[in-house]
Amino acid sequence: MDSKKPGRRRFLKGGAAAAGLAMGAGKVVAADATANDMAYSKKDLIAYGERSHYVTSIREPVPGRMSPDAFGLVFHVTTPLQDSVGIITPSSLHYVATHRGSFVPDIDPKQHRFMIHGMVDRPLVFTMDELKRMPYVTRVHFLECLGNRSGAKAKTVQDTHGLTSCSEWTGVLLSTLLKECGVQAGASWMVAEGAEEVKGASSIPLAKGLDDCLVVYAQNGEALRPQQGFPLRLIVPGFEGIYQTKYLRRIKIVDRFYMTYNDYGHINPDPKVTALTTQWGPKSVITFPSGGQQLSGTGFYDISGLAWSGGGAVKKVEVSTDGGKKWQDAELRTPAYRMAHTRFGLNWKWDGKECTLLSRCTDELGEVQPTIAEAGKFFGDAPEKARVRGTDNSIQPWIVAADGSVRNGHS
Amino acid sequence: MDSKKPGRRRFLKGGAAAAGLAMGAGKVVAADATANDMAYSKKDLIAYGERSHYVTSIREPVPGRMSPDAFGLVFHVTTPLQDSVGIITPSSLHYVATHRGSFVPDIDPKQHRFMIHGMVDRPLVFTMDELKRMPYVTRVHFLECLGNRSGAKAKTVQDTHGLTSCSEWTGVLLSTLLKECGVQAGASWMVAEGAEEVKGASSIPLAKGLDDCLVVYAQNGEALRPQQGFPLRLIVPGFEGIYQTKYLRRIKIVDRFYMTYNDYGHINPDPKVTALTTQWGPKSVITFPSGGQQLSGTGFYDISGLAWSGGGAVKKVEVSTDGGKKWQDAELRTPAYRMAHTRFGLNWKWDGKECTLLSRCTDELGEVQPTIAEAGKFFGDAPEKARVRGTDNSIQPWIVAADGSVRNGHS
Repeated sequence: MDSKKPGRRRFLKGGAAAAGLAMGAGKVVAADATANDMAYSKKDLIAYGERSHYVTSIREPVPGRMSPDAFGLVFHVTTPLQDSVGIITPSSLHYVATHRGSFVPDIDPKQHRFMIHGMVDRPLVFTMDELKRMPYVTRVHFLECLGNRSGAKAKTVQDTHGLTSCSEWTGVLLSTLLKECGVQAGASWMVAEGAEEVKGASSIPLAKGLDDCLVVYAQNGEALRPQQGFPLRLIVPGFEGIYQTKYLRRIKIVDRFYMTYNDYGHINPDPKVTALTTQWGPKSVITFPSGGQQLSGTGFYDISGLAWSGGGAVKKVEVSTDGGKKWQDAELRTPAYRMAHTRFGLNWKWDGKECTLLSRCTDELGEVQPTIAEAGKFFGDAPEKARVRGTDNSIQPWIVAADGSVRNGHS
Repeated sequence: MDSKKPGRRRFLKGGAAAAGLAMGAGKVVAADATANDMAYSKKDLIAYGERSHYVTSIREPVPGRMSPDAFGLVFHVTTPLQDSVGIITPSSLHYVATHRGSFVPDIDPKQHRFMIHGMVDRPLVFTMDELKRMPYVTRVHFLECLGNRSGAKAKTVQDTHGLTSCSEWTGVLLSTLLKECGVQAGASWMVAEGAEEVKGASSIPLAKGLDDCLVVYAQNGEALRPQQGFPLRLIVPGFEGIYQTKYLRRIKIVDRFYMTYNDYGHINPDPKVTALTTQWGPKSVITFPSGGQQLSGTGFYDISGLAWSGGGAVKKVEVSTDGGKKWQDAELRTPAYRMAHTRFGLNWKWDGKECTLLSRCTDELGEVQPTIAEAGKFFGDAPEKARVRGTDNSIQPWIVAADGSVRNGHS
């Protein structure tokens, strides 16, 4: 083949990294140490591969939500959405949020049991093997923590929106299990409890449980990760994160709302706040360009972002590059699943002037993502108030400065 | 909450695993060492999570395709499909197949270049940053190695079909890049070359390159894994694995087929073999129950499997539980993407008698997966011949014995 083409020298330099490898004692090391000083473990090469040492995208602790030297009751780490592509969040980068004292119970799946009891004809206890023998479904759903909001201190999209992630979940429809148990007349709520030190528990309307809730044992094609509830968790599609009970060990069918540990702050005297703290509204955020990123010059960029809604599938995403004066329909670059992240994109030519980028999601119910002022108005707050009560699904502004730097429009 | 229900004692035993955790020097260790002797690293808890130590599903080397103590030119490891759920293969468990001497080039993405040259108006060299700035797409596609076949020695579905995996890929359509370069009249083939010691290269019809080929930098929401071609690879949807050039560094646009190192055995004097060695036909396999698994008794099981086709989307999957006398339509449990794994399932009640389980895929072209005898007949082989020439998409029989054990119907 002919290689006498532009850029050949730099090209060959890249190719020189393809050094031969030879086997050492339990390690595969580069034969040419000057070109390649990396070692691959046998486990990595064969049993279970690892990512490149050049890839450094990581989760970050939420300020004030953990101390690196003394994990407390509160522990939150965020997904690096600025590096995200597609809609699947790598399980290793899924956000974690807990208020429950022990954030990673180490549960032997052979010992784990899941019980359904309360207002049912046949209380049942399931082993993991029994659950895996039942009819399964696989669905893509996002999770999002109430803590996700864009304050003045938040610099990056990891800071503002990093408490949402999206996975392919596999498990049994809760409705399948409830059918086996026989729900009694008069039952209207359910309380889900996890095997955590303080027994994370959530009250959930039974109608939701009979609709689309999942009892899942797998995430992105393998067993649930420990930080996501191994060996079993509840998925309550579209509901706020705290309902997605990890380390699920029982569900009690009841006829009233139970005030549990997890309902701190989630049930509020203001019925509007309560209503808006349960299910996520239509939401979206531009992940590129986003706060802390740097455009290398004028010209073409492909704006990229994520949209989702607790109310169903994303129907439309609009993007504004002038702070909301004009809006253009973005392309949906992945299928729009119900209660799942959907990737959108828009070709854009930057002219080098300061501008504000916005995205706005409309879901299948026709609900439209509000501005922060609109969300505040709903609660009767002054428009300048920069914190939305309940779940914050307000529009995120990113300001691109004339030097190509990008910053949070709320900061 | 009332816990006076059946199974409470075993239930509480499971719950006891939720031991409190306390912080050690760089490690988080269980406060109650009798219940929990596992340690979590800080890296795992915060930066990049790991799977549970209870989960042991791993890739396995193909017999004769590697020596564990001296990696040779040939190195194949298989995906544990018997443990698979959904359609996304975890990147860590993606199959690997190489014949190229250095199976994991350690490439600095800042140094990597990708060149398109040959019969184009404007030969171009792209940096990774330049590629990531271009319009991207995200698509789910399977890959499958020609080595996948069910011989007499193969015991499990990992042995028979473990050289196929499926990922969410993100990158740039090759057609977008070729438009930038301007393909010249008369061009009809392209040769893709990777930065490997022996320069893995494949000749691909240009029509395919202009259709749906992708130049991808991401897999399942993060950077490509080193064993899958970090930082850049070609995806040729539906084509045999060897065309999916890893460590992609150039594509030359040409007017004829080039015989390259990678075309060993792929271009055959028999035009039928050649044709059937390029694109995968409709294919499927039952992953549960499959060879080496054990049914625990008679009664309900949910048969689970994967179907795919190089010709497009899966249209239908049929399952037989009596060796092919009767066929039932399986449920497609995930969306049927073009050239992607699709999960199917069928509720089944086992009566305890020996039986043979089969699955049969029909794709959107109307092509139907053949039996091994039908595939052999196509090549003029005797029906008892148990090896299909070219890509083997024949029906996989699993025999469930009266004791519940499952074995390969070809063994």
